[in-house]
Amino acid sequence: LNIELINTGTELLLGFVTNTNQQWLCRQLSQRGYVVTRQLAVPDTGAEIQQAVREAFTRGNLVITTGGLGPTSDDLTRECIAQLFGRPLSEDAASLAKIERFFRERNRPMPERTRLQALVPEGARVLANNNGTAPGLALELDAAAYGRTGQRGLLIMLPGPPRELEPMFLTEVVPLLLERFPPNEPFACRVLRSTGVGESAVEERIAGRLQPLVAAGLEIGYCARFGEVDVRLVARGPKADELVKQAEQTVRSLIGKHVFGCETDELPAVIIRDLTARRQTLALAESCTGGYIAHRLTNVPGASAVLTGGFVTYSNEAKQTCLGVRSETLATHGAVSEPTAREMAEGARDRLRSTYAIAVTGIAGPGGGSAEKPVGTVYMALAGNGPTLVLRQLNRYDRESFKFVTSQQALELLRRRLNDLGGNFRPL
Amino acid sequence: LNIELINTGTELLLGFVTNTNQQWLCRQLSQRGYVVTRQLAVPDTGAEIQQAVREAFTRGNLVITTGGLGPTSDDLTRECIAQLFGRPLSEDAASLAKIERFFRERNRPMPERTRLQALVPEGARVLANNNGTAPGLALELDAAAYGRTGQRGLLIMLPGPPRELEPMFLTEVVPLLLERFPPNEPFACRVLRSTGVGESAVEERIAGRLQPLVAAGLEIGYCARFGEVDVRLVARGPKADELVKQAEQTVRSLIGKHVFGCETDELPAVIIRDLTARRQTLALAESCTGGYIAHRLTNVPGASAVLTGGFVTYSNEAKQTCLGVRSETLATHGAVSEPTAREMAEGARDRLRSTYAIAVTGIAGPGGGSAEKPVGTVYMALAGNGPTLVLRQLNRYDRESFKFVTSQQALELLRRRLNDLGGNFRPL
Repeated sequence: LNIELINTGTELLLGFVTNTNQQWLCRQLSQRGYVVTRQLAVPDTGAEIQQAVREAFTRGNLVITTGGLGPTSDDLTRECIAQLFGRPLSEDAASLAKIERFFRERNRPMPERTRLQALVPEGARVLANNNGTAPGLALELDAAAYGRTGQRGLLIMLPGPPRELEPMFLTEVVPLLLERFPPNEPFACRVLRSTGVGESAVEERIAGRLQPLVAAGLEIGYCARFGEVDVRLVARGPKADELVKQAEQTVRSLIGKHVFGCETDELPAVIIRDLTARRQTLALAESCTGGYIAHRLTNVPGASAVLTGGFVTYSNEAKQTCLGVRSETLATHGAVSEPTAREMAEGARDRLRSTYAIAVTGIAGPGGGSAEKPVGTVYMALAGNGPTLVLRQLNRYDRESFKFVTSQQALELLRRRLNDLGGNFRPL
Repeated sequence: LNIELINTGTELLLGFVTNTNQQWLCRQLSQRGYVVTRQLAVPDTGAEIQQAVREAFTRGNLVITTGGLGPTSDDLTRECIAQLFGRPLSEDAASLAKIERFFRERNRPMPERTRLQALVPEGARVLANNNGTAPGLALELDAAAYGRTGQRGLLIMLPGPPRELEPMFLTEVVPLLLERFPPNEPFACRVLRSTGVGESAVEERIAGRLQPLVAAGLEIGYCARFGEVDVRLVARGPKADELVKQAEQTVRSLIGKHVFGCETDELPAVIIRDLTARRQTLALAESCTGGYIAHRLTNVPGASAVLTGGFVTYSNEAKQTCLGVRSETLATHGAVSEPTAREMAEGARDRLRSTYAIAVTGIAGPGGGSAEKPVGTVYMALAGNGPTLVLRQLNRYDRESFKFVTSQQALELLRRRLNDLGGNFRPL
């Protein structure tokens, strides 16, 4: 099975938008054993889309397109695919009824052009869109199509907006794929997400011990980003599940403390889940991360039950006024110091009456460093019911990566505490 | 001139990482009149990279690759390109010296494999990397190459890490492109970035008045994201500059209040710049945006001179403790109300002694709505030296889009005030 993904949209090639659909679809597919072999972005002109689809079918037997199913004049995918494969379009009554209901429920008039979205190429299957008006389409290219254009296989057309594409993929496309391209052998995949240890250190610790499983067919992949290393364990064949399970156990036995989740888990969601289960709360005092830890936590639905509040205290004055950091502490040790981090965390915990508080103070750069405290120096503190823990790190990255890595370390400090994993971990 | 971009990397097709290089390069190129006609991502195997490059040259005369120039075993671009075009690799003394210096300056031992990065295909030009060890390469495919493989044109190979690729593109590639593919006619491009007005409203207001310029050769493009609409004005030929300037004037005369910047300007940077110039300061009180406004502002270098601090006050208790919101206000009007937003902003301003304060309180969803205050309801307040301004908006989006749109509206409220544009603007 060769899978090609075609993202249509002139805005992609002008660099106006990030192609987030690509990553999302590739990840969803690869975790189910369907690895995309090629991804392509083309402008939304009929000729370019037709050429891309035609070429893709010379290599692949499953082609997925995104975009171009909307009602405006540059939405050409439906029409040009119908033309390419000689499948006349006709209005699908069920789709039209659904579109009409969509507008009725929102008390909005239905623009006439929206009706175009109910057009379906002959023989295509409609993929329900429960979050927008453009249904997706699945078109089987059988022997007849092959005779006409030299293609055969399955073409799936998805709408461009992620909030429409994502649920449609999960509820409509995944079952279709499993039915149409059933895995010819069992497939198992597990992604273990770790933090607090570098890629080469992860590999060094686990590769040797996994060697017997690799000899039995296990594939290992590593993916490192700043502050995170994913370990991907894949196996095929009758023993796939068993191999991956054994591999997971081995990895956990070797670097288990660093593993915060699986597949697409994010550290903030893990923290929210852990605190919610314990009915405990968290407060934040952020200097150099500037609200980023609060932002990451509040992206998680349900964060309000856990996060009592946060302070962004850039200035010394704000550290005193909002958190009660003492002026002597600031004068003697400076804003970027262990005592300041400690007082920030304890101040946030006490003022917001939370179970825990995390504080971060450091020098993000590009300016502000010194010999003793170079750019990248960060102190992070965790205040709770026991003694306050303070960690010093050196995070030398660009400004945004600095914020991410620092937020990751600070949250990990709490995750370690919540899971009794010990507070002293290696720097990232 | 046909330009094709090839991003190499198995991690892209597994969906482990977002292809940010694609957007960045496409945008940089298009703003200089070089529009990418096709973008491709392929796994980092030698055969796939070779096939992609070979095919790209059947359509394009400029091909840019990213990735695969590093020292590890899956970095194959250099080698497989040399093989494809029959250009033997030899070690470039200047590149090697630079790599050695890179490690010496950082007091780190130089891994032996790093030496591979000094290998250069015969006839290739080295593109200096001042932020890493892998130099880029530019390879002219002349008549001899054409005879061998049927290709001709220019192949540019860039390293994958954005912090290496981006400066290399600007200092090495742009001059090379201008020399090798000089625009055969003058090209002008201007992107005006607006907020507070929808895409169709922008088009409705400006399209008619721009018609005479379009007849003279102006091209207009729109790009809408939640909370932002870009208008792209492009012209070619001897009158390009004049046409685009006239068009910009016309657009500004019609929707100027909504235009917050040009090209890649972001609203937070505009706010920081405006406040810095006025030596004024800002405080934040965020409920439903959960620290996202603080995060966006603190991504801008120099934010510390302007942002005195911020509060993330999810709970009623935090609103009282941190900001001094009165319990009667909360009891009578609720946390999501005009009086609460007003007291939050005034409390933040007074406690952090800032010139201005922005407050936001609302219902991000998915839960928490009522008939009177449905999910998406937001009150945002701007406190300054005059009367406090409060705005009610209805932002019905998913959680992360809600945060973005709301942060955009709140910052725009301040930008309007700073530029005397009037405080009452149309909802997005």
